[in-house]
Amino acid sequence: MHFFSDNVTPISPAILAAIAAADHADHGYDGDAWSARLDGAFSDLFETPVSALWVATGTAANCIALATLCPPYGGILCHEEAHIMVDECGAPGFFTHGASLMALPGDGAKLSPLAVADRLKAIRPDVHQVPARAISITNATEYGLVYAPDEVAALGDVAKAHGMGFHMDGARFANAVAHLGCAPADVTWRAGVDALSFGCVKNGGMVGEALLFFGDKAPARAAEAKRWRKRSGHLFSKGRYLAAQILAMIDGGLWLDNAGRANAAAQALAAGAAGRLMHVVQANELFVRLTAAEAASLRAQGFDFYDWGDGAARLVTNWSQDAQSVAPLAQALQALGHG
Amino acid sequence: MHFFSDNVTPISPAILAAIAAADHADHGYDGDAWSARLDGAFSDLFETPVSALWVATGTAANCIALATLCPPYGGILCHEEAHIMVDECGAPGFFTHGASLMALPGDGAKLSPLAVADRLKAIRPDVHQVPARAISITNATEYGLVYAPDEVAALGDVAKAHGMGFHMDGARFANAVAHLGCAPADVTWRAGVDALSFGCVKNGGMVGEALLFFGDKAPARAAEAKRWRKRSGHLFSKGRYLAAQILAMIDGGLWLDNAGRANAAAQALAAGAAGRLMHVVQANELFVRLTAAEAASLRAQGFDFYDWGDGAARLVTNWSQDAQSVAPLAQALQALGHG
Amino acid sequence: MHFFSDNVTPISPAILAAIAAADHADHGYDGDAWSARLDGAFSDLFETPVSALWVATGTAANCIALATLCPPYGGILCHEEAHIMVDECGAPGFFTHGASLMALPGDGAKLSPLAVADRLKAIRPDVHQVPARAISITNATEYGLVYAPDEVAALGDVAKAHGMGFHMDGARFANAVAHLGCAPADVTWRAGVDALSFGCVKNGGMVGEALLFFGDKAPARAAEAKRWRKRSGHLFSKGRYLAAQILAMIDGGLWLDNAGRANAAAQALAAGAAGRLMHVVQANELFVRLTAAEAASLRAQGFDFYDWGDGAARLVTNWSQDAQSVAPLAQALQALGHG
Amino acid sequence: MHFFSDNVTPISPAILAAIAAADHADHGYDGDAWSARLDGAFSDLFETPVSALWVATGTAANCIALATLCPPYGGILCHEEAHIMVDECGAPGFFTHGASLMALPGDGAKLSPLAVADRLKAIRPDVHQVPARAISITNATEYGLVYAPDEVAALGDVAKAHGMGFHMDGARFANAVAHLGCAPADVTWRAGVDALSFGCVKNGGMVGEALLFFGDKAPARAAEAKRWRKRSGHLFSKGRYLAAQILAMIDGGLWLDNAGRANAAAQALAAGAAGRLMHVVQANELFVRLTAAEAASLRAQGFDFYDWGDGAARLVTNWSQDAQSVAPLAQALQALGHG
Repeated sequence: MHFFSDNVTPISPAILAAIAAADHADHGYDGDAWSARLDGAFSDLFETPVSALWVATGTAANCIALATLCPPYGGILCHEEAHIMVDECGAPGFFTHGASLMALPGDGAKLSPLAVADRLKAIRPDVHQVPARAISITNATEYGLVYAPDEVAALGDVAKAHGMGFHMDGARFANAVAHLGCAPADVTWRAGVDALSFGCVKNGGMVGEALLFFGDKAPARAAEAKRWRKRSGHLFSKGRYLAAQILAMIDGGLWLDNAGRANAAAQALAAGAAGRLMHVVQANELFVRLTAAEAASLRAQGFDFYDWGDGAARLVTNWSQDAQSVAPLAQALQALGHG
Repeated sequence: MHFFSDNVTPISPAILAAIAAADHADHGYDGDAWSARLDGAFSDLFETPVSALWVATGTAANCIALATLCPPYGGILCHEEAHIMVDECGAPGFFTHGASLMALPGDGAKLSPLAVADRLKAIRPDVHQVPARAISITNATEYGLVYAPDEVAALGDVAKAHGMGFHMDGARFANAVAHLGCAPADVTWRAGVDALSFGCVKNGGMVGEALLFFGDKAPARAAEAKRWRKRSGHLFSKGRYLAAQILAMIDGGLWLDNAGRANAAAQALAAGAAGRLMHVVQANELFVRLTAAEAASLRAQGFDFYDWGDGAARLVTNWSQDAQSVAPLAQALQALGHG
Repeated sequence: MHFFSDNVTPISPAILAAIAAADHADHGYDGDAWSARLDGAFSDLFETPVSALWVATGTAANCIALATLCPPYGGILCHEEAHIMVDECGAPGFFTHGASLMALPGDGAKLSPLAVADRLKAIRPDVHQVPARAISITNATEYGLVYAPDEVAALGDVAKAHGMGFHMDGARFANAVAHLGCAPADVTWRAGVDALSFGCVKNGGMVGEALLFFGDKAPARAAEAKRWRKRSGHLFSKGRYLAAQILAMIDGGLWLDNAGRANAAAQALAAGAAGRLMHVVQANELFVRLTAAEAASLRAQGFDFYDWGDGAARLVTNWSQDAQSVAPLAQALQALGHG
Repeated sequence: MHFFSDNVTPISPAILAAIAAADHADHGYDGDAWSARLDGAFSDLFETPVSALWVATGTAANCIALATLCPPYGGILCHEEAHIMVDECGAPGFFTHGASLMALPGDGAKLSPLAVADRLKAIRPDVHQVPARAISITNATEYGLVYAPDEVAALGDVAKAHGMGFHMDGARFANAVAHLGCAPADVTWRAGVDALSFGCVKNGGMVGEALLFFGDKAPARAAEAKRWRKRSGHLFSKGRYLAAQILAMIDGGLWLDNAGRANAAAQALAAGAAGRLMHVVQANELFVRLTAAEAASLRAQGFDFYDWGDGAARLVTNWSQDAQSVAPLAQALQALGHG
């Protein structure tokens, strides 16, 4: 049973069906009927005008967003364990032409307004220093924690006060919203977010993520983003197959259904792993203390997962699971005792 | 009936089947069983060790190839109407960090060794001028012409003599090989080509092209290309769905079958358009003289195509057509007379 | 006697004196009293508010200007023999992060509004093509021709009509103005120029050129340019020694006196070389037809100069010469006959 | 009396004399007789073949060095308070096309082999993470501490073991060597350093620093660095005026004489500030605890200096001072008591 990553799993049947349904002749690039529906579909979902683009990957979505928010000589405040900092091989530097990532600490990979404010105070406004021009947060975070609307809004206020752009890496945005039970708007543009990487692939998609812009500047930023998208080789010539997946994800709420099952599976595991948890479980990731012997025992029982340094492991649940299907691992964890 | 572009058409049924067949759990990124087969499959096809990567688009394949062949301060010799020059929004400049495209003239968008040699002679070797470090050609060209093995080899000799890398944009490589009837090796590495963008999407694929490296430096270049791929947001987290498409394309010769049908359809149209042709027809594109009235007449009959400036049009055939299926347009062209 | 280049000559005595006079303690970077005078001095000279920066070289001035006028995905229209195109090792690509230089033909390295308009017409507005965002001209040109105010204004009108920035490479701006006898304003901002590389080194300076911004956007562009200047390593820690040179050049009209002598020397040579001239002589450069034997004969008489391909030579006069001092070469040219 | 920075002071008389002495006609760029002497002069000084270039500033020297040592997808290990990290407006990102600076802690802005090794251990070798490809240290450090030869060698061993390049920012290299009393070779190439930014301007120069490459790869790296130098606008057209300054600095030992005086001045101040020192004083910088009232008192006595946050100040001595000339400040500090 796979808990290694949520990109291991097959794709959602509805996604495969949507690809097949889109298999007609249409205009190339983003000139097709599916791509044309994106702005409207996301505007409905977010209750505000949204400019939406498909891109290949989450890295592309994050970095194109950042390129529209931060000049090459600017800095991007983010958590020291953010995906853009540690898992994209310097892609933000590539897309922004050398902007600086400014790493901040924070429990559970969450940024606090205080940490941001402290960092901003330390930057002199002269040309020798890199001015912070954007904040980027991940929701749910790399440790599976979820920013609530008021937490996002507190950071949004700092961003606004300092003229900084505000980006949210939403590779697991669906899991965050499923946990919060709020409107997607509450945790994004209503809280000051300018650009959202709306993840699909970890949530049952095949290829393609959505990049969304909110607010007055959205059309201008999206127009610029379309230049970056072409220039970075992400303008697929048959974009309809990406648009169709994304639409299938949000039409009818598949994105929340899928995320809800993954979250429920994570809660089931959390119950089994009580006493071992390194972070509270809110989305679809668990970080648990686990000795090498315990890890080996679980693997021998057919569970795969990712070692998180020495003495710990990361367990990721996914859309194809639910509380019941992961019960064997929950029981196996419980059988290990309380760590 | 669609002659607008070969990216308008649906995808090849075998490709859709391959996607469905790959819909199993596997490792993420390029750690899966399908991706692992790419090097071997292309090595077989090209009769030499090949290092192969999937990327999202032809632009990405072209530009990652160029980034491995040319430093930022170098120049890339290409045709003045090459796709990398006119249709990628400056993507080569993005991926190479500002290398210079050096435009050369040539009939039918073909480069000649003489034009290349003349350009090289005009470059002083001092640090004030940009040194040419790579040649890039397109086969079949943007005007549907095909470089034969000896034509490629003549350019390959110039490249080798001047220490330049040699890249081939093969968005329609299948159409070129189907026309030539030669071994793929003959028109690539045996003729001095270092890197090939092996096109799939115009030939019936959905998303994903292959980037191939040949020769002693192939492993090192591919290793570097994998960094560029990650860094530019092209490392899909479910890469198996791209690898599966590419494998389906080359396994069993689908790529040549598809291209052969498109080429045959183009020949049928060429026969109907005799006297109007602006270039000899060798692959799956026709450029025909056509008055506005004639164009309107054809469109009224249900044929769509791309205007090529005033008084001309581009007709592109594709894998889903053949000589018989395009007969209506061939007859309509013939009915217009000889232009 | 040196006619190889105007960078061969010693520096103007007033410049050396200005360096010595600035040799006092003062604030670092551009915080000193000399640097603080630049805006005002140039505003007086150009009869309008000017934002001025010193930078190390003409390449830096040109490229920082272009970086403020053109985004990475944009294009810069320039002559195919412009210095930025052929003599800066791709520096514009480096500073602009990969913007495209769009080469245009034109006699004497001059751009015509017609050539610009034709090129603009050929660019589709979709994201596949690079949009032209700036024009750059050189005055005096690389062939020593001078754009008159109305010629600049005609290009300025095109730039304005298409929302493009307008840059002038004035490495030999002094020679141009000395030839025209007009106000510096007439051939720059009154004719639509947004940014001027104001050359000093070829005109008797040691190190340091001035980069000037005109118009409403000047303060914002200069602020951005100061970031680029720091970021590209051009913010000297003892900037006062550059500012002092530039001020010495414009205070009291040294720049026009120096250029006037160089121009007069060129006219004297032109009289001697009548019949051999490849371009009309307006500034301080002559391009003359000269056989290898003739060139050897002149060199044997102690004149050095630059071969301009086969059968031609470039002669550059400088501030330290005048009509009388170059009489020996004028006579030697005349003695060769009319070529 | 100035203690604000070592760039406040006038230039060394010998430097001004050298500029005047170089004021002859010669070839442009680096084709002159002075530039031609650089390699030899530095090879003598460092007792090994050296490839040397002049560039405008320390930022340019640092960043061109790093661009030759680290690919765009690589990382550069440096101290979190290194000049390249905090005072160059992201210039390393500009010159390296987006390489990542990897900040490390350490007392007195010194890197320890242990901190480097720990950081290296945390980097996975897969393509998702940025591989460390270079180490950069500053000697003397930003806090005026000096790495001894064995300390440099320990870092050099780590660099070599991991295939990383090793750069030393020597803006105050002269002060370091004057303190150590060792051969320049001992603290550079013999300790594994590949590239050195050899500072002149803070030590009495006007404009221009030297960039030195050591070892087998030096000629190739210097050839590449010359491309970067041109491309970044640092190839002065009258380079002889920079070369002459640099030669004057190392000929006859001016660099060590100047640094020795500055260091002696710093020691004199250190004696006066005993009990207030935040770091041991080894070069020409002091960091002292100072209340706002004490700072105001010193300023009222005519001493200027830089506030170092709240309750502290930075005092920098320079070549034009010595122990005797700074005695007034030493006494004033002593008069304040022990803080």
